[in-house]
Amino acid sequence: MIRSAILGASGYVGGELLRLLARHPGIEAARLFGDSKAGQRLGVVHPHIGGPTGAIEVERFSLEALDGIDLVFAALPHGESQKWAEAILATGAKLVDLGADFRLHDQQDYATWYGEAHAAPHLLDRFVYGIPELHRDAICSAQAVAAAGCYPTATILALKPLIDAGLVESNSLIVDAASGVSGAGRAVKEGTAFNTVDGSFAAYGLLNHRHTAEMEQALGATVLFTPHLAPMTRGILATCYATAAREMTADEPLEALRAAYADEPFVRVSDAPPATKWVTGSNGAVVSARYDARTKRVLALGAIDNLGKGAAGQMIQCANLMFGLDEAAGLSAEGVFP
Amino acid sequence: MIRSAILGASGYVGGELLRLLARHPGIEAARLFGDSKAGQRLGVVHPHIGGPTGAIEVERFSLEALDGIDLVFAALPHGESQKWAEAILATGAKLVDLGADFRLHDQQDYATWYGEAHAAPHLLDRFVYGIPELHRDAICSAQAVAAAGCYPTATILALKPLIDAGLVESNSLIVDAASGVSGAGRAVKEGTAFNTVDGSFAAYGLLNHRHTAEMEQALGATVLFTPHLAPMTRGILATCYATAAREMTADEPLEALRAAYADEPFVRVSDAPPATKWVTGSNGAVVSARYDARTKRVLALGAIDNLGKGAAGQMIQCANLMFGLDEAAGLSAEGVFP
Amino acid sequence: MIRSAILGASGYVGGELLRLLARHPGIEAARLFGDSKAGQRLGVVHPHIGGPTGAIEVERFSLEALDGIDLVFAALPHGESQKWAEAILATGAKLVDLGADFRLHDQQDYATWYGEAHAAPHLLDRFVYGIPELHRDAICSAQAVAAAGCYPTATILALKPLIDAGLVESNSLIVDAASGVSGAGRAVKEGTAFNTVDGSFAAYGLLNHRHTAEMEQALGATVLFTPHLAPMTRGILATCYATAAREMTADEPLEALRAAYADEPFVRVSDAPPATKWVTGSNGAVVSARYDARTKRVLALGAIDNLGKGAAGQMIQCANLMFGLDEAAGLSAEGVFP
Amino acid sequence: MIRSAILGASGYVGGELLRLLARHPGIEAARLFGDSKAGQRLGVVHPHIGGPTGAIEVERFSLEALDGIDLVFAALPHGESQKWAEAILATGAKLVDLGADFRLHDQQDYATWYGEAHAAPHLLDRFVYGIPELHRDAICSAQAVAAAGCYPTATILALKPLIDAGLVESNSLIVDAASGVSGAGRAVKEGTAFNTVDGSFAAYGLLNHRHTAEMEQALGATVLFTPHLAPMTRGILATCYATAAREMTADEPLEALRAAYADEPFVRVSDAPPATKWVTGSNGAVVSARYDARTKRVLALGAIDNLGKGAAGQMIQCANLMFGLDEAAGLSAEGVFP
Repeated sequence: MIRSAILGASGYVGGELLRLLARHPGIEAARLFGDSKAGQRLGVVHPHIGGPTGAIEVERFSLEALDGIDLVFAALPHGESQKWAEAILATGAKLVDLGADFRLHDQQDYATWYGEAHAAPHLLDRFVYGIPELHRDAICSAQAVAAAGCYPTATILALKPLIDAGLVESNSLIVDAASGVSGAGRAVKEGTAFNTVDGSFAAYGLLNHRHTAEMEQALGATVLFTPHLAPMTRGILATCYATAAREMTADEPLEALRAAYADEPFVRVSDAPPATKWVTGSNGAVVSARYDARTKRVLALGAIDNLGKGAAGQMIQCANLMFGLDEAAGLSAEGVFP
Repeated sequence: MIRSAILGASGYVGGELLRLLARHPGIEAARLFGDSKAGQRLGVVHPHIGGPTGAIEVERFSLEALDGIDLVFAALPHGESQKWAEAILATGAKLVDLGADFRLHDQQDYATWYGEAHAAPHLLDRFVYGIPELHRDAICSAQAVAAAGCYPTATILALKPLIDAGLVESNSLIVDAASGVSGAGRAVKEGTAFNTVDGSFAAYGLLNHRHTAEMEQALGATVLFTPHLAPMTRGILATCYATAAREMTADEPLEALRAAYADEPFVRVSDAPPATKWVTGSNGAVVSARYDARTKRVLALGAIDNLGKGAAGQMIQCANLMFGLDEAAGLSAEGVFP
Repeated sequence: MIRSAILGASGYVGGELLRLLARHPGIEAARLFGDSKAGQRLGVVHPHIGGPTGAIEVERFSLEALDGIDLVFAALPHGESQKWAEAILATGAKLVDLGADFRLHDQQDYATWYGEAHAAPHLLDRFVYGIPELHRDAICSAQAVAAAGCYPTATILALKPLIDAGLVESNSLIVDAASGVSGAGRAVKEGTAFNTVDGSFAAYGLLNHRHTAEMEQALGATVLFTPHLAPMTRGILATCYATAAREMTADEPLEALRAAYADEPFVRVSDAPPATKWVTGSNGAVVSARYDARTKRVLALGAIDNLGKGAAGQMIQCANLMFGLDEAAGLSAEGVFP
Repeated sequence: MIRSAILGASGYVGGELLRLLARHPGIEAARLFGDSKAGQRLGVVHPHIGGPTGAIEVERFSLEALDGIDLVFAALPHGESQKWAEAILATGAKLVDLGADFRLHDQQDYATWYGEAHAAPHLLDRFVYGIPELHRDAICSAQAVAAAGCYPTATILALKPLIDAGLVESNSLIVDAASGVSGAGRAVKEGTAFNTVDGSFAAYGLLNHRHTAEMEQALGATVLFTPHLAPMTRGILATCYATAAREMTADEPLEALRAAYADEPFVRVSDAPPATKWVTGSNGAVVSARYDARTKRVLALGAIDNLGKGAAGQMIQCANLMFGLDEAAGLSAEGVFP
């Protein structure tokens, strides 16, 4: 078994990694770090984790504790992994980082969108951007992967094949997306209280959500992105609009998606517009697209579970590739439905 | 008291009209028609209606039953009111119709979007489009009002002042909106079953939702409209995108909204992006807007309760104007929050 | 207009009082106190409150600010009103207190269930327990009312007539109730975060929930009470079990309820088991009951909105009585349905 | 691989079986029967099922189609499996039936609670009642298992050890339980429409829910059972009350549960009251209990996913035992949390 450590084990992504690794045939969760809840038992921190694992205590992180660890999953607030990445990589362990720190190749982009200078710019080119459907070969041979953000994953999976096929203009993208509340993390605040969100739908982060930069980098395009909070725990749907590069049949964008994802185990191309619940709790993604002759626009849709393909699932998918395991080991594409 | 009749009393809009009229100082619900549930007691059809009203039976509609009626609220499936409008108007009663039948001025638009010829095109110009904030004077003197659809109300309130102020190009509009499930009506189907919708977010009616025509007519613009179903019972948020007509400050669109709605009792202009729950159960609307210098686009947001300002509330607001009552009689702007 | 002050104006009950008083014909919200949010505008604290009221700032409480106030609504954490009650009553104002401080007649009960000595036991007998259906006459002539708790209101309305009619044994009561999350108040904590509650149902406060004492006092019975948290914002359903005092027909308990509530404007007796949504956003209550010959038990059900009949609505109903207004002024019995 | 057939493949339990079997190492879903949706592709019937499985068409059932089948999972409306059980068993296949048909050992009980004579009473003693924690040995050697109902599973797991330990009186049980909406099955009706259930909590099936018989049989006790519908898709919490047989410490019931389930992979004994979400999407169960010295009663709680441990999960757990596989194969105990 590959011995992994989880940094940020007490957050939602940490809990999802634990759930998935509990049934993973090749990777075990050997060390569990989480500073704010250090000393608490996992079964208290994550009430879905019982049995012997539930009795393990969350540890305070230290580099020494990585001794014998083959793989580090980091699910930390942005800014944290740039402090530790160099030391972690120096141990020889592979690293799958879900933070934003190493997703943007250009340190200036990081400074612009995150409002502070990058602390470890010399490491940026050691990280591969972690969407296996786009960068599988690079991930296979990487020591370090920066797993993509949740909104970008849904968006990029829906749009990238259309851009590659020359169907849409790259200066015209609008991404309007809705997320479940778990996307806002586990910190307790009024904006994510049950009473605030239940029965309500709202936009937030207008014009300047940081995931915009990631989308623009991956798509080579300008993006206006509006995230929304939907009254559900999990799931992201990205509804994407682009000016068509030329006239085409209504289904030509769908065919481009089918061609791109024909052999992908986790991406389904759907005629019908996908619902997020189709992939809840799984590593699956569903995309769809069509051309509107009336307005000369292409509409593309991408649905994922933000904690699955948008976080823990994709991290494991990347790790499977990095260690030469079956890419689908420990993962499923079928959502918990209904 | 003005004696009103409700056609379609057993649907959700009918139930909301009953709730609101129960406390209206000037209009009473005198006759209640609903063919599919004729003979059933209101308290069974609408479990929120108790007391003496709950004991009244739903009646089968007949023109004779309109004897002594001053006002007809019609909340019927599209295609139904065009059968009855002429006879109803001939009784001298005023008519507030929530159906789509008389919203489009051009019968050809009706045929295009609804797939059938209009049965009473000669009546089209007798109906005023029912958004009081846009057409107050005309509504005051009208015998017949075609109350606006739910999505169009949210969208038009957010965008119309920006178009009127010349801030946006009218050939570039994208409307991405999410609705609560009650917007799909009361008919029972798998797509609106609890298990299907709970924890899920999905787009539907891609490219050809009929409310597009209404938006385009009211805004004088081309619109690409994508509706979504959100896991909540009530509420609509329209997130609208337009190419800016020129450069401007970030707040110039917001100021245009403030100017347009300064004296409106039911439309609030908000700095912060509105949440649908702010207006749940009320006739309120909240709008916001800003300019994105980076992408040269204007973003506008409109939130309403689809059964309130998007249906029964707006119908009553129109009726209040038609009868010279206080425009706000029987209505509130404060949502049931939380 | 009667000038009222709200203590605890920034909580959920404060917000509901504001919503209801905005349309009350005889009572206005003249002063709004809330220490933790003092200085913030109401429209920010309560996003459903717009217009001129939304621009008012929450004040820090002082006795001097009660000058000219006829009525004080207190919605404070338990322990707070016993500090202020004497001074408030000395101003001559009437007081409707939603805190637990003055609900229990016996100071020893307060000490037992709240774990601390009562600070103003000499005032206990100046307060009438505030359920109008039980104590209407006393409320009419009271200067001070201790409005009942949310769980006790639902429970007592369902059980009291059955006890009074001698249908059930008073030493055998089990109350199993579910509440919406707003019943836990507005303080932000992980247990009421959206992600914790959504899609989940759980019991809490096992064996020792403080509302037990109130139920026992009002019913003159021993009660085992188990509250549950349901994934909804508003609503309480109390499902109550008692050993029958004798054999009876299945409907005899229902008839006892019908007799008790025949003239009540806000309590509906229903054949069918009530759903909380029938009364959401209203001051209505629905009760039902039946006898089970198989197990010799009586089952009784009571549904309310915890913020309506269980809090702000009942406070206003009491105030209406105290000032000789129409008992139903500013209130409705019809829930916001669906 | 063991070749299984699913009868009722188009229902929710069928869909959950498909999801679980997709990752089961020893059992495959070889034939999929569902009369009402025969001819439709699985991916349309179950939108969470993609890939090659999604392309398979649902078949109309015939006995011939069972050729080569080792195991039949039946998830049919009650009354259906008694028509087919004899023929299915005659093929030599093993049968795990989720219907109510073979759960009650006494055909008279079936007639009493289901209102019709049993059509195959001679088969009753060939079925083992399917809760592995209670009847593991019998299940291991059985050809036919009648998997327990969802409410009974949650209830029996919480109460049985307390009865066996002599802690409670068996003539005094009250079971008050709440279920997610998927427990009502997939048939479309107004009572399970999103708008009806969202934000609402209600009791149903008062006094005579059929699962009562199953509980009474398994517990050897009289039970008054009240089911409730909670606004969530999955999950059951049973809150159970019993008169204590004697005085005891507060924790003695909890210790009895710990003793009973010490070696069980899927039942967790929790100090804290469990929430249904801890086990959503899994085959886990969480139980808790305590003694209330004040009222001399024992309170016991049981939480499961009604489609997991309450249906498909338990069916697979039984099948694993019947075929000598690892009891936990294809199953997990960790819920999808949050």
